[in-house]
Amino acid sequence: MEKKLSVDHLLGIKYLTKGDIELILSTADYFKKVLQQPIRKVPSLQDTTIANVFFENSTRTRLSFELAEKRLSADVVNFSASSSSVSKGETLIDTVNNILAMKVDMVVMRHPNPGASMFLAKHVKSKIINAGDGAHEHPTQALLDAYSITRKFDVPHLKGKKVVIVGDILHSRVAISNIYCLHRLGAEVMVCGPTTLIPKHISALNVKVEHNLRKALEWCDVANMLRIQLERQDIKYFPSLREYTMMYGVNKQLLDSLGKEITIMHPGPINRGVEITSDVADSGQSIILQQVENGVAIRMAVLYLLSGKSTIGG
Amino acid sequence: MEKKLSVDHLLGIKYLTKGDIELILSTADYFKKVLQQPIRKVPSLQDTTIANVFFENSTRTRLSFELAEKRLSADVVNFSASSSSVSKGETLIDTVNNILAMKVDMVVMRHPNPGASMFLAKHVKSKIINAGDGAHEHPTQALLDAYSITRKFDVPHLKGKKVVIVGDILHSRVAISNIYCLHRLGAEVMVCGPTTLIPKHISALNVKVEHNLRKALEWCDVANMLRIQLERQDIKYFPSLREYTMMYGVNKQLLDSLGKEITIMHPGPINRGVEITSDVADSGQSIILQQVENGVAIRMAVLYLLSGKSTIGG
Amino acid sequence: MEKKLSVDHLLGIKYLTKGDIELILSTADYFKKVLQQPIRKVPSLQDTTIANVFFENSTRTRLSFELAEKRLSADVVNFSASSSSVSKGETLIDTVNNILAMKVDMVVMRHPNPGASMFLAKHVKSKIINAGDGAHEHPTQALLDAYSITRKFDVPHLKGKKVVIVGDILHSRVAISNIYCLHRLGAEVMVCGPTTLIPKHISALNVKVEHNLRKALEWCDVANMLRIQLERQDIKYFPSLREYTMMYGVNKQLLDSLGKEITIMHPGPINRGVEITSDVADSGQSIILQQVENGVAIRMAVLYLLSGKSTIGG
Repeated sequence: MEKKLSVDHLLGIKYLTKGDIELILSTADYFKKVLQQPIRKVPSLQDTTIANVFFENSTRTRLSFELAEKRLSADVVNFSASSSSVSKGETLIDTVNNILAMKVDMVVMRHPNPGASMFLAKHVKSKIINAGDGAHEHPTQALLDAYSITRKFDVPHLKGKKVVIVGDILHSRVAISNIYCLHRLGAEVMVCGPTTLIPKHISALNVKVEHNLRKALEWCDVANMLRIQLERQDIKYFPSLREYTMMYGVNKQLLDSLGKEITIMHPGPINRGVEITSDVADSGQSIILQQVENGVAIRMAVLYLLSGKSTIGG
Repeated sequence: MEKKLSVDHLLGIKYLTKGDIELILSTADYFKKVLQQPIRKVPSLQDTTIANVFFENSTRTRLSFELAEKRLSADVVNFSASSSSVSKGETLIDTVNNILAMKVDMVVMRHPNPGASMFLAKHVKSKIINAGDGAHEHPTQALLDAYSITRKFDVPHLKGKKVVIVGDILHSRVAISNIYCLHRLGAEVMVCGPTTLIPKHISALNVKVEHNLRKALEWCDVANMLRIQLERQDIKYFPSLREYTMMYGVNKQLLDSLGKEITIMHPGPINRGVEITSDVADSGQSIILQQVENGVAIRMAVLYLLSGKSTIGG
Repeated sequence: MEKKLSVDHLLGIKYLTKGDIELILSTADYFKKVLQQPIRKVPSLQDTTIANVFFENSTRTRLSFELAEKRLSADVVNFSASSSSVSKGETLIDTVNNILAMKVDMVVMRHPNPGASMFLAKHVKSKIINAGDGAHEHPTQALLDAYSITRKFDVPHLKGKKVVIVGDILHSRVAISNIYCLHRLGAEVMVCGPTTLIPKHISALNVKVEHNLRKALEWCDVANMLRIQLERQDIKYFPSLREYTMMYGVNKQLLDSLGKEITIMHPGPINRGVEITSDVADSGQSIILQQVENGVAIRMAVLYLLSGKSTIGG
């Protein structure tokens, strides 16, 4: 395994090699141990300034990055679009170039437009980490999801594992990033949801398509239940939430009837009673909170590896 | 005096013993001295991460906690509801469990619903500090108020002191927490305000009720003037602000006519010219700014004691 | 050159001596070198707490101050008006006195009202740094602009340099602060713009007035292109943006036709295609990003000098 990433930025899983992903996952293993010690901090990035530039609201992703940065001892500045010059008509490149002129080493950016982070990486001199760009990619989510599966099954890769992603595949950057990441690590991937929420081109990504939830769950080892993001939908894709839940929501009764134990994931925030019921979300089969916990370790790994530092301990 | 608190969380003064309150006040004394030194920082909580989770806007309380945390060398992350997943329909427990899964040790929470912090403490594994939950309690405010009175009179407890709380008792978490705290420390408590702003059950809390401000001031050693929180009132409780001020506002002339010197407190923010006039707020009888100063020491004491660390200096 | 500033606060360039400005610029030189080292941090203000109190939105100024503060190792708390007690009717003095009672050493304030920071400095005990007060002054911007010109020409002062400020002089705190600062350092200053955007009293400040952009550019060594702040204009001062651009916008063709090379500055954020075209903003004649970079060094210098610390390294 190489010791350096093949990329200068983390723009999407699409641009990572299998070796890159394996390096990030094994580095996250190191940081996960750090996070379990009484002192959860390393001095690795103490001479590094990181700006979190969020053009969309976010709780967990922003907080997870901020905690990862602080535990690497980086200096952190936060910037959100609502209080910014963006509303004064400044271009994205100007905004970020201004931040970088203040000697910021890395930019973690969430932006509503697909490709925004890639556009930026081409035009500014800095390490860019994509924290979600529209319906394009959300690479750290896919990495923490893949990492959470390897930890759940205590395996180094995902060869032979079957993962179904359930829900709104059409609008989901999480789904696309997960498909790339799971494939790189050897897993088989299925998507499941109503026809209106499955992109037509999806078979080109070498995934199975299944519209029947029971059949999908019978096939899989892991089910990643996507959030219904009503706020992202400009037109109606299904008759009602209640109908969606009846067709594509997972409840305990359904799980118990499968005759095998599958692992339940969710990128959060959960709509309890919509995609999954509370007894499923809080059951022993759910690794939802482990995903959140692993997210900090994965983000520490990504920031550390992109920084180009040679010693983890500082 | 015991050296540990009898509680795991600070949810309300109601759940503290007299010993708990005395321990917090004596610990605050230590931190107040730290704050008066040139270097106002101790390494006590340098391996602790604290999240300030504010579901309601706040200036002084959020800032006071944040300064207390930074001066204890904790790592601090801020989270406000407006930029959060809460608006995406996530439950309170899920939001906080997600924050905790990122290995946050303590949560300081303000929430509009009474009992929100208690609900949380029952369901998540973390130290919870209530920074105000609806009209229920605001325990650190009551502690800093009691502490400010002991410092003003240079006494260890409040036996024999007479304190009147003036204004909107009905909607005030500050009033309720103060009544519990003052009683625990031996003070006599009176509430004063228009009938519509005094809860009917209040005599059950063993407080005197007085509707005449002059009589209340003649009785007391300390008057704690509550803010008229117009934003919290859905119906009108008095004819007009001007009328309220005429009946329940304190001005210099009234104070001077008492024939004795009483101490004036206010939890802020002040409506100058409503509850108190500027010459009263800025007079030598007012300890309003000392309350703010003591607030940081009290919050350092609470955070330090709940952390369970055994050495203050680190 | 004296080693201490003649002022306790930085309220405006108007109140600084030539010696003050030279001391700030030479101190900025030291910090600029610090910012170019691998470890961009000094312990100078590690026992200092600074509050950034912004009553107006701002990207670059708030971020630039925050980075300056963190690189001086100060403890930093941020406070923005929208999430504050200000909306609850608290006075400015009460808000800031409350912040100061929490033992905050310095306040960096942006406020929409001219004179707000001066008013504050008279009433509170703390070092106040004006980060922009309405149409009055923006002293750190003028200092970084002057510093950027001295670095561009590698000269210690600006004697003999000719600077034109182009655009909306009437509403611009940047223009006023720049005129004072450039004059103190010996430069000749011209303002250029439509009659409606040039204040009638401006000749009292000993500046030339020119309404023809080409003539202004032919005269000058440096052109500081102000942003058209449409959000600050309550009435129309020119027929249309397109017409403004035709008369007072700088493009590459115009620059190339001058027969000499002039330096282009802009305080940002740029309206590309309005005040200047993209090929001018991104050309070798533009020092716009150097201005941003120098801003952090200038702000470190101002904070350090006002703190009264005697050793830069800590």
